[in-house]
Amino acid sequence: MLNFEFKNPTKILFGKDQIAALAKEVPAQSKVLLLYGGGSIKKNGVYDQVKKALQQHQLLEFGGIEPNPEYKTLMKAVQLIKQEGIDFLLAVGGGSVIDGTKFISAAAVYPGDNSWDILARGIRTEKGMPFGSVLTLPATGSEMNSGAVINRSEIQEKRTMGGPGLFPVFSILDPQVVQSLPARQIQNGITDAFTHVLEQYLTYPIGALLQDRFAESILQTLVEVGPKVQKDPSDYTAAANFMWCCTMALNGLIQKGVPTDWATHMIAHELTALYGIDHARTLAIIAPNLYRYTFEDKKEKLAQYGERVWNITQGTLEEKAEAAIQKTVDFFHTLEIKTRLSDYTDAYEQTADIVYQRFEERGWKGLGERKKIGPDAARRIVELSY
Amino acid sequence: MLNFEFKNPTKILFGKDQIAALAKEVPAQSKVLLLYGGGSIKKNGVYDQVKKALQQHQLLEFGGIEPNPEYKTLMKAVQLIKQEGIDFLLAVGGGSVIDGTKFISAAAVYPGDNSWDILARGIRTEKGMPFGSVLTLPATGSEMNSGAVINRSEIQEKRTMGGPGLFPVFSILDPQVVQSLPARQIQNGITDAFTHVLEQYLTYPIGALLQDRFAESILQTLVEVGPKVQKDPSDYTAAANFMWCCTMALNGLIQKGVPTDWATHMIAHELTALYGIDHARTLAIIAPNLYRYTFEDKKEKLAQYGERVWNITQGTLEEKAEAAIQKTVDFFHTLEIKTRLSDYTDAYEQTADIVYQRFEERGWKGLGERKKIGPDAARRIVELSY
Repeated sequence: MLNFEFKNPTKILFGKDQIAALAKEVPAQSKVLLLYGGGSIKKNGVYDQVKKALQQHQLLEFGGIEPNPEYKTLMKAVQLIKQEGIDFLLAVGGGSVIDGTKFISAAAVYPGDNSWDILARGIRTEKGMPFGSVLTLPATGSEMNSGAVINRSEIQEKRTMGGPGLFPVFSILDPQVVQSLPARQIQNGITDAFTHVLEQYLTYPIGALLQDRFAESILQTLVEVGPKVQKDPSDYTAAANFMWCCTMALNGLIQKGVPTDWATHMIAHELTALYGIDHARTLAIIAPNLYRYTFEDKKEKLAQYGERVWNITQGTLEEKAEAAIQKTVDFFHTLEIKTRLSDYTDAYEQTADIVYQRFEERGWKGLGERKKIGPDAARRIVELSY
Repeated sequence: MLNFEFKNPTKILFGKDQIAALAKEVPAQSKVLLLYGGGSIKKNGVYDQVKKALQQHQLLEFGGIEPNPEYKTLMKAVQLIKQEGIDFLLAVGGGSVIDGTKFISAAAVYPGDNSWDILARGIRTEKGMPFGSVLTLPATGSEMNSGAVINRSEIQEKRTMGGPGLFPVFSILDPQVVQSLPARQIQNGITDAFTHVLEQYLTYPIGALLQDRFAESILQTLVEVGPKVQKDPSDYTAAANFMWCCTMALNGLIQKGVPTDWATHMIAHELTALYGIDHARTLAIIAPNLYRYTFEDKKEKLAQYGERVWNITQGTLEEKAEAAIQKTVDFFHTLEIKTRLSDYTDAYEQTADIVYQRFEERGWKGLGERKKIGPDAARRIVELSY
C-alpha cells in the first residue's frame, strides 16, 4: 500500500425529503446565491422544495449554468456576488452546476486580478466562499469532492481545478430526484461512476486489499442496481444505491494508497471536444480499448476484477482478464451505451491522428499508472475504438 | 436504505514514517500537551519520533492514561491544561489514550462547574479543544470517530460520550507500529474490528447494498490478513490492511443508512467489569451466542455473510446462517481467542443472573436492532456463553 493522506469534510444528508434540511444547514444570517442550470429543477419540484426550505433566508438566484460550465457564464455570477455582498452559495443541480459553483467559490475570494489564472495557472484554493449542494443527477461525485472541470470555449480550453477549500460544506442527496431523470442521464450516470472506479482500480496490485474490495463493492452494486434503476427510476432502493455509489466512486476514499490511471478520461475528453459526445459515452468507447492496449500491465487486476465482479472462475489469468473486458463492454450495452466511435459519428477516420496531435501539443507523454500513455498510445487506443 | 447524515472531518495521514508530518500538522504557535499511556511508546521508538518532529513546538507531557481511561486521571490533565494555557492536545497511543483525550478535550472547554456532567448527563460536545492523534494500536477506530468510553471506578461507572466537536483534527497511522505489538494485542485488535463490523452489519436486510458490501469488504480483508499479521507483525502489507480495516470499521461509514445492533457490546462490557477479561475477548464470547439467540431475526444477513465472507454456497438459508456462526467462532480460534466464558474464569455460574440484574437496574429492556434484548435475553445469551 502506498502512503496517503485523506480528508473529506463534506457533510452528507442522504435520503427522502432531506431537502427540507436546507433550512438548518444554510447559515441563517447569510446572503445566499442559489445557482442552477437549464431549469429542470423547476420541472421536477426541486426548485420549489429549495425555495420553501429557504423562505426565511435572503436568497438571490443565478440560473443558466451550462452542462459543461463556461468560464464566461460563471464570471457573471462572480460579479453578481461582489455587487450583492453574497456570502454563501447553494448549487442545485448535477456535476456541472456543482463544478461551476466550485469555480465561483474560488473566484469570489481570489485576491488576484484575473480569475482565469485559477484555471490557467492551476492555483489551488485553500479557502473558497462556503457553499452547499443539492444533487439532482447522480454521476460525477462532485457533491463530495473538491475538484471541478471548467470550460472556456472562446479559446477552446477545458481545465481542471481544485483545492482543500473547495469541498461542499454539505450536500443533500435525495434519491427521489432520480425518478424524473431521462433514461439517457441515468445510463450516463451509471457509466460515469463505473468508469471512475475502474480508473482507480484497474492498474496493478499494490497490496491495498481493502481499497480493492471497496472498489469492487461499488462495481458490484452498480452491476446489481444499474439495470433496475434504468428500468424503473422510481425504484427507491435501486436509486438510493445508485446515488450513493456515484458519490463513493469519486470522494477520494478508494484512490487512497493505490496507483491510479485516468488516461481513459484524458483521451475521452478529446472525443467530447471533437464531436460533442456525452462524457460518459466517450468513457465507454475508450476504456475497453485502453485495457486491451495496456493488457500486459493491467492483466492481474483485470483478472481479479473478472473473478470478483463478474464471477469468471474458469480459464487462465489472461483468459479471465480478456473475459472481464468483454463483460465490461456487455454491461455498457445493457445500459444502451454504444461502445464504438463509429456508432456516434461517420467522420471518425481522422480522430486518432487528431488525438495524437493534441497529446503532442500538450506534451502529454506519460499518462496512466505506468506513465506510458503518450501520443502514440493514445492514437492506437483511439484506432482500436473506431 | 434508511435516511442518514454523514460527516467525518478527520484528516488521516497513513503510511511509513508519517509521524514526521506532525511538524506541519500541529499548529506552530500552539502550546501542546502530549498525552500517552503506560510508556510502551518509549520502548517502540514512537515517543522519540514524536519528540523529534515537534522539537520546534512548545510541548508538555502527561503520561499514565490507563487502558480503561479513568475520569480521575483525566481530570488531572484538565487541571494541567488550565494551569499551563495549553491549546492543542496530541494523543499518542491506542484507543484508550485517544478516548481519554476526547474527554479531556471536552472537559477543557466545558463551561459548567462539574465535568462529570459531560458523562453523567450525556452532554454532547459541539467544539472541544483541538487534538490530533498518533495511533499505536489498531483496534477501536477512535482515531477517526468522535466517541469515547470513560471509566470512573470509584463509583463503578463506565460511560460513553461524544459529539461533532470530538473528531481528531488529524490522525497519523503508521503501520510499522504493529511490528512491536504483543501477539495478544494484535489478536484483540482484529477481533475488536471484526466485531465492530458485525454489530453494524448482522441485523436485517434494508436494501443498503453498498453498505453491506463495504462491511463485507472489511470482514474479508480481516479474514485474509488477520492470520498473516498475527504470524508476522512485520509484514507491512498485512499490517497496513489490518490498520486501515480497524479505522474503517468504526468511522461511521458502514453504519449509515442501516439498522445497527450493539447488544453484543452492552452484554460483553459486563464481563469485563466482572472478571477483567479483555474487551475484544468478551465480544468473542458473546457475539456467537447472541447470533444463536436472535437467529430468526438475523438469519437472512447471517446467510448472506456466510455466502460472501465464508464462501458457504451449500445448504438452506438456515444451514448457511448456522455455518456462518460456526465460521466466526473458528476464526476467533485461529486468532487464539477463546470463546467460552469458562475458558476465562471458574466462577462463571452466577454470571447470567448478575447480568440480568445489571440490565434490570439500568432499565435496558430494548437493545439490539429489533429492540428485543432486555434482561431475560441477556441472561439467556450469557448462559449460552458458559
